[in-house]
Amino acid sequence: MPRAVAGPEIERLVQLLARLPGLGPRSARRAALALIKKREALMAPLTAALADALAKIVVCRTCGNMDVCDPCTVCQDAGRERHLLVVVADVADLWALERAGALNARYHVLGGVLSPLDGVGPDDLNIPSLISRVHQDQIGEVILALGATVDGQTTAHYITDLLRGAQVRVTRLAQGVPVGGELDYLDEGTLAAAIRARTQV
Amino acid sequence: MPRAVAGPEIERLVQLLARLPGLGPRSARRAALALIKKREALMAPLTAALADALAKIVVCRTCGNMDVCDPCTVCQDAGRERHLLVVVADVADLWALERAGALNARYHVLGGVLSPLDGVGPDDLNIPSLISRVHQDQIGEVILALGATVDGQTTAHYITDLLRGAQVRVTRLAQGVPVGGELDYLDEGTLAAAIRARTQV
Repeated sequence: MPRAVAGPEIERLVQLLARLPGLGPRSARRAALALIKKREALMAPLTAALADALAKIVVCRTCGNMDVCDPCTVCQDAGRERHLLVVVADVADLWALERAGALNARYHVLGGVLSPLDGVGPDDLNIPSLISRVHQDQIGEVILALGATVDGQTTAHYITDLLRGAQVRVTRLAQGVPVGGELDYLDEGTLAAAIRARTQV
Repeated sequence: MPRAVAGPEIERLVQLLARLPGLGPRSARRAALALIKKREALMAPLTAALADALAKIVVCRTCGNMDVCDPCTVCQDAGRERHLLVVVADVADLWALERAGALNARYHVLGGVLSPLDGVGPDDLNIPSLISRVHQDQIGEVILALGATVDGQTTAHYITDLLRGAQVRVTRLAQGVPVGGELDYLDEGTLAAAIRARTQV
């Protein structure tokens, strides 16, 4: 913008909105305008909701999820299967699995995956708390829901090794053709994994 | 989402973010997660910027722009040409023209366009203040920067009629081929307008 079209407060709001994923400089400007124009209907409640969440959000000391309570909503939910524990890298992965609604379990958020290149070692992740939780809570099955990347699979192997002595079944997500996926758009690695893990019809 | 994955505070934040233009339910969830994870670097400053803007934003009594000061930044800018006044429907149009940087003028925000179907009449828009401003400020040229829609052009005609007695030149934006536009994608109305307004090379 060649000249200041509005006060620094509005420019600062635009700059901060532009740092949200999914919003660029242009859409952040549109979002700021929408907020300014819907002052009472949108801007005031959003400000209050942000301030509320900002004051209340904590990291769950049990699973590493982020929520407004500790233990978090998922850990407090008595209706979830007690013997199942799903290991995820990130809170975003926890939310994605909950969206899928395919299981009714508790989670353990590692806070990342092992990555020698980025200097992320076992001590940087919530792996010790995972191991002690598996023993204390008498978990029957640990589902490693980690990405099908080199680092994700390295992390899965590392955790599997640590849990080898424990009386626990360790599983990982199936690899194969994504639902709705077309074969000729898939990479060779996925196709090979899908063939190796083929199931009888 | 089948079950509550987080406290109501976070769900409310997601719902409010989803009402911003450019964000849907899914990207609002990603934005909320980004905020939660970047608590100090993003969530706290954004909350402060919103609260700051919310407390300070006012409508400029001179031109109808929204800003944190009255008169607004544009009206206060002494470097703008005094004899030029650009009439726009909305604050968003003012921002768009400022982005283009093609003129260095003051604005008058109507707050919409005349629309008999939607029940928007002359009294609902900042038209009386425009007319008195043109006389008081001794404006030399009024540029009607209104959309090339039926309602926009109706509004332009209405204002032109009101200003017929005043010593002021009234102009409107040129209609024609958009820069970068290809002829075979353009509608007949635009092509006809571009041919009518053809210029000698």
